[in-house]
Amino acid sequence: MELSSFITSLVTSFVIFLVLMFLFAWLSRKPGNNVVYYPNRILKGLDLPDSRTRNPFSWIKAALSSTEHDVVSVSGVDTAVYFVFLSTALTVLLLSGILLLPTLLPIAATDTGIRQNGAFSELDKLSMGNVRQNSPRLWAYMIAVYWVSMVTYFMLWKAYKHVSELRAAALMSAEVRPEQFAVLVRDIPPPMDGETRKEQIESYFKTIYPGSFYTSMVITDNKKVNKIWKELEGYKKKLVRAEAVYTQSGGVRPTNRIGFQGLFGKKVDTIDYASEKINELIPKLQSEQTVTLRDRQLSSALLFFSSKVAAASAAQTLHSRTLDIWTVMDAPEPRQLIWSNLSINFYEREVRKYIVYFIVLLVILFYMIPIGIISAFTTLKNLVKLLPFIKPIASVSSLRTVFEAYLPQIALIVFLAMLPKMLMFLSKVEGIPSESHAVRAASGKYFYFMIFNVFIGVTIGGTLFGTLKEVEGHPNRIVSLLAQSLPDNATFFLTYVALKFFVGYGLELSRIVPLIIFHLKKKYVCKTEADIREAWAPADFKYATRVPGDLLILTIVLCYSVIAPLIIVFGVIYFALGWLVLRNQALNVYVPSYETCGRMWPHLHTRFLAALLLYQVTMLGYFGVKAFHFTPMLIPLPVITVIFAVVCRNKFYRFFQCTALEVASHGPIETPNIEHIYRSYIPPSLSFNKFYLDRFRDV
Amino acid sequence: MELSSFITSLVTSFVIFLVLMFLFAWLSRKPGNNVVYYPNRILKGLDLPDSRTRNPFSWIKAALSSTEHDVVSVSGVDTAVYFVFLSTALTVLLLSGILLLPTLLPIAATDTGIRQNGAFSELDKLSMGNVRQNSPRLWAYMIAVYWVSMVTYFMLWKAYKHVSELRAAALMSAEVRPEQFAVLVRDIPPPMDGETRKEQIESYFKTIYPGSFYTSMVITDNKKVNKIWKELEGYKKKLVRAEAVYTQSGGVRPTNRIGFQGLFGKKVDTIDYASEKINELIPKLQSEQTVTLRDRQLSSALLFFSSKVAAASAAQTLHSRTLDIWTVMDAPEPRQLIWSNLSINFYEREVRKYIVYFIVLLVILFYMIPIGIISAFTTLKNLVKLLPFIKPIASVSSLRTVFEAYLPQIALIVFLAMLPKMLMFLSKVEGIPSESHAVRAASGKYFYFMIFNVFIGVTIGGTLFGTLKEVEGHPNRIVSLLAQSLPDNATFFLTYVALKFFVGYGLELSRIVPLIIFHLKKKYVCKTEADIREAWAPADFKYATRVPGDLLILTIVLCYSVIAPLIIVFGVIYFALGWLVLRNQALNVYVPSYETCGRMWPHLHTRFLAALLLYQVTMLGYFGVKAFHFTPMLIPLPVITVIFAVVCRNKFYRFFQCTALEVASHGPIETPNIEHIYRSYIPPSLSFNKFYLDRFRDV
Repeated sequence: MELSSFITSLVTSFVIFLVLMFLFAWLSRKPGNNVVYYPNRILKGLDLPDSRTRNPFSWIKAALSSTEHDVVSVSGVDTAVYFVFLSTALTVLLLSGILLLPTLLPIAATDTGIRQNGAFSELDKLSMGNVRQNSPRLWAYMIAVYWVSMVTYFMLWKAYKHVSELRAAALMSAEVRPEQFAVLVRDIPPPMDGETRKEQIESYFKTIYPGSFYTSMVITDNKKVNKIWKELEGYKKKLVRAEAVYTQSGGVRPTNRIGFQGLFGKKVDTIDYASEKINELIPKLQSEQTVTLRDRQLSSALLFFSSKVAAASAAQTLHSRTLDIWTVMDAPEPRQLIWSNLSINFYEREVRKYIVYFIVLLVILFYMIPIGIISAFTTLKNLVKLLPFIKPIASVSSLRTVFEAYLPQIALIVFLAMLPKMLMFLSKVEGIPSESHAVRAASGKYFYFMIFNVFIGVTIGGTLFGTLKEVEGHPNRIVSLLAQSLPDNATFFLTYVALKFFVGYGLELSRIVPLIIFHLKKKYVCKTEADIREAWAPADFKYATRVPGDLLILTIVLCYSVIAPLIIVFGVIYFALGWLVLRNQALNVYVPSYETCGRMWPHLHTRFLAALLLYQVTMLGYFGVKAFHFTPMLIPLPVITVIFAVVCRNKFYRFFQCTALEVASHGPIETPNIEHIYRSYIPPSLSFNKFYLDRFRDV
Repeated sequence: MELSSFITSLVTSFVIFLVLMFLFAWLSRKPGNNVVYYPNRILKGLDLPDSRTRNPFSWIKAALSSTEHDVVSVSGVDTAVYFVFLSTALTVLLLSGILLLPTLLPIAATDTGIRQNGAFSELDKLSMGNVRQNSPRLWAYMIAVYWVSMVTYFMLWKAYKHVSELRAAALMSAEVRPEQFAVLVRDIPPPMDGETRKEQIESYFKTIYPGSFYTSMVITDNKKVNKIWKELEGYKKKLVRAEAVYTQSGGVRPTNRIGFQGLFGKKVDTIDYASEKINELIPKLQSEQTVTLRDRQLSSALLFFSSKVAAASAAQTLHSRTLDIWTVMDAPEPRQLIWSNLSINFYEREVRKYIVYFIVLLVILFYMIPIGIISAFTTLKNLVKLLPFIKPIASVSSLRTVFEAYLPQIALIVFLAMLPKMLMFLSKVEGIPSESHAVRAASGKYFYFMIFNVFIGVTIGGTLFGTLKEVEGHPNRIVSLLAQSLPDNATFFLTYVALKFFVGYGLELSRIVPLIIFHLKKKYVCKTEADIREAWAPADFKYATRVPGDLLILTIVLCYSVIAPLIIVFGVIYFALGWLVLRNQALNVYVPSYETCGRMWPHLHTRFLAALLLYQVTMLGYFGVKAFHFTPMLIPLPVITVIFAVVCRNKFYRFFQCTALEVASHGPIETPNIEHIYRSYIPPSLSFNKFYLDRFRDV
């Protein structure tokens, strides 16, 4: 890529960002948009910033002046931990840049190693590619590799310690978290004859914990009762809306059709119909609840303890002689419990896990094959055969051309759009009992997919297939192949990173899309206050796709940090801008849908180290390509990285799996209301009324 | 080997066994030998069998009629678990033999595949070597491989379950075991200023376990106090002996020299000298005890809890946020605590472990090199230079010949004799806190040494070095090489196993060596009752060398079970005879020096499976050598073995690491005397008198 075209694309992106930022400044001043730009503050009942004093940069000031404590109190520990990740990445890149930019750029620029044949850009002259083979100048690059690695170890160690303290502080806080008093037990053996599940569970645990065991909740199969409950809730909503329409229209009773999606079938009076349905469903729900609680008990339960220490201790000890029955673990929060996964038994979980891993491996390695096949079959001809009604469209010549151009890509586009959802589905199929764990699992899978396909794929893609014969039987060639093709792609990735941060974060900040959707919904769909509230209800951070994205950028920047040090500048801007924009979003917009007290961190830490390892191995290969005699001096680095990972895991990880007792022994001064804690775990479809609460207790 | 010479050696071994057995029957009748043949019964205060009714086979009847319960009550759970291992191995071989012998022997005998060129024995005709290449008869052998594997899985599964129950029963028994109320905590961080260790520990654990924490014992550096105490005990013994000599000799006061080993120096009156020394040492010990308890406190402690559940739960939970401080584990029994290892910190333990593993690996692979070097240097010439005083011996020509013949072997013989002790030393250097764990670690190392050097070494030794060039670069050749050289060695191993069981178990049963030593000691060394008691004090089972020996035989028999099925007969005799002889020894002779409630089992189980895996891989290679087209049908077997190992580990292993709470919740009906439990952990050198007991509490 020419220098001029690179700068053009950079300037364009920057202008787009500026436009979006001013758009944000302008739109967020209008009181009517407050629910789009400040939903988190509104839901938390906090003051909104005064629209008159706001200038286009006041949000930056607010973001910069906010403390970690503000983030924890407004958005929770998980968000704070995500910012620790962003600032760690930022500091690593800043510290690397401070040493690398003033030294490596002049060293490269004053050398003449670049090949004179054919296309090369001005930018390439600043990269390691411009240093001659086995030049003593490469010593500077080798020191740089060590510097970046050491800075990373140091910052990651500090960050792990800090996050560990954040987690401890959250778990020690005076706030009562129901999950700290609860334990999830799975794989309960069949009860003896004449004994109910509840009796079995309570007699088992009361023997072991005579003092601290409070009660248990047997997990039930809620599929049927959930269905009825959803139907009932649907009709209740319909009734409220119909009444609102009735009032607004001044006496015209609204009607609807009772067939498919309200499009076909008999026309009925909505208010009458919904009321009738509700009256019909309430007793049905009640009897279904009774049946569920009595007959659909599964082999899992939640246990409730009267103290945090007892619960933390029970969640990490071996109860049965064999590990495959009475399996215990920390209870997830009520809101993130995946109720339907709770009763999958031990061996099935193991088998499912390995099957899912195998499927994901296949998807990562061979996803192009089915897409290729689908593309081959989705020609216009075949489509017309399958769906005869598109024939008139296909016969228009201009439309036909467009179709034929885009059809082959459609399968790929659809696949890439569906991928995060598919990975999330696969992670849930593993039998993971909590939403947050499933998000972490999906995020990990997505990371490996992206690293393999975007980074490695783009970098060596063309080269690899051309020289597959060369590589065959010599897998260690892959490293040097990867290294050889790196410099050519440096400029491509510079542009990719730049585009990603300017346009991506511009859209993120301005919230153009949610704003438009909200106003459209408000105008055409919403009938009641509840409808409007639902229309602006903010999402959460969507870590499952956000984190792999950040990690991909981090991997790219690390891998090129020494080869083309200019990329560090872009990396710094990416993480600085990300920190700033997301700080604003955390404080004002997003509402986390769960709280894990920082369990995401070990996941981030491991992948940060994986990126570092990839970088070190790549550099080993690239120094080899440069025929540098002292290349083996880089070998200790990957070894140190692995030892560092093991030490961190040994030292810190277990506290992120379970609660340390010294932490659990601090907490609410007054004894919490355990009845209240117990009730918070009853799913809405079973908590119909007080009567059923009591029934639940007595099963 | 010719059939006749094989039978000769077999018959000789059997005759030796018969002689030793009758010797045992005759010697064990004499009441004067009771302390050698029934020490365990004497120490336990049980009746001895009536010597008049004993016939040469009555011990067999007694062994056969004893139940597992008898073994547990007389010799503990560990011994019972060892018998489970013996009977599992025996059953596996019996069930294999029942199918394999009547089918495979005729199949081989009626074929003509054996090479007609050169030496082969009659025995070889019965082996798989006599079946022609790719003969359909090989199907029978393949089925046999599957049969042996399936029988092993089944028996091992049953055995693991059974041992798990034995362990649970022992841990649930009403007997008070001090270690069930104690927890070992290591890596305690430095205390705050003005806080004693004891205060630090108690405030930490009282916060977490307000109800169940009883007290703590800080581990101290006892090197100095132990030395003084040993000296004191030595003089006490000396005094008692001198007084006995004085009484027996009718008034002649015994004297001794105070120099090196009582051989040099001034002659003194022993009674006066010892009394004087004792009076000197008692105050020295007392002041040393005070100093030790006050100033030599280390960063470890034993914690005592008032209930088994609390202790079991505390031993398996995470207390601190980081895993490298406040590390907890089950307390070992007082008698097997390796006091000096308790204060090695977390990282040092890890580093030591890997260094020891590395050293052991070097020893296993390259032990011949230093021995070769030493042998090369220990020529008679060099020895004479180093030790001039052997010159007169070396000049005698006949002695010179003997010397020159044996000198080269001496290094090897010394090495092999020292190896178990060296491995035990290395295992203790790892920082393992309990004697039994060190024994298991040493046993494991010895097993791998034996398998590698005896089995693989003898089998492929000659072949390998001759064809090293062939193997180079094709490591998968090793398997087929191993397989190719197996049939040649089958007869060698038949003889080895036969010799081992007839002579080995004959010596074991007759106890000739301990008998002679006892009588010599009694006659020439022992002066007092205590001396005599010490002279016959029985040893324990010495699992560190016994178990690897059994496992080696098992590996050999399994590996040849299909190739030369005749070896199964010998294997069955080995384990049957072993069971019988050791049952007698367990009931009458050996006294276990510790009790781990079956923690040895997972160790035995894993190595049993390792033997099976080696067998399966060898068969895979051997079928390949036989050019059998369906050889790949054996590939599932090693995979199944690995899966079986993982499933067993997942299901059963954790209960052998720590106590399941459902087990700990059963136990002594009355609350035990915790003060008593506490005192049982005070090392003898610090428990001088009541006064010091109290001091210990107050530090």
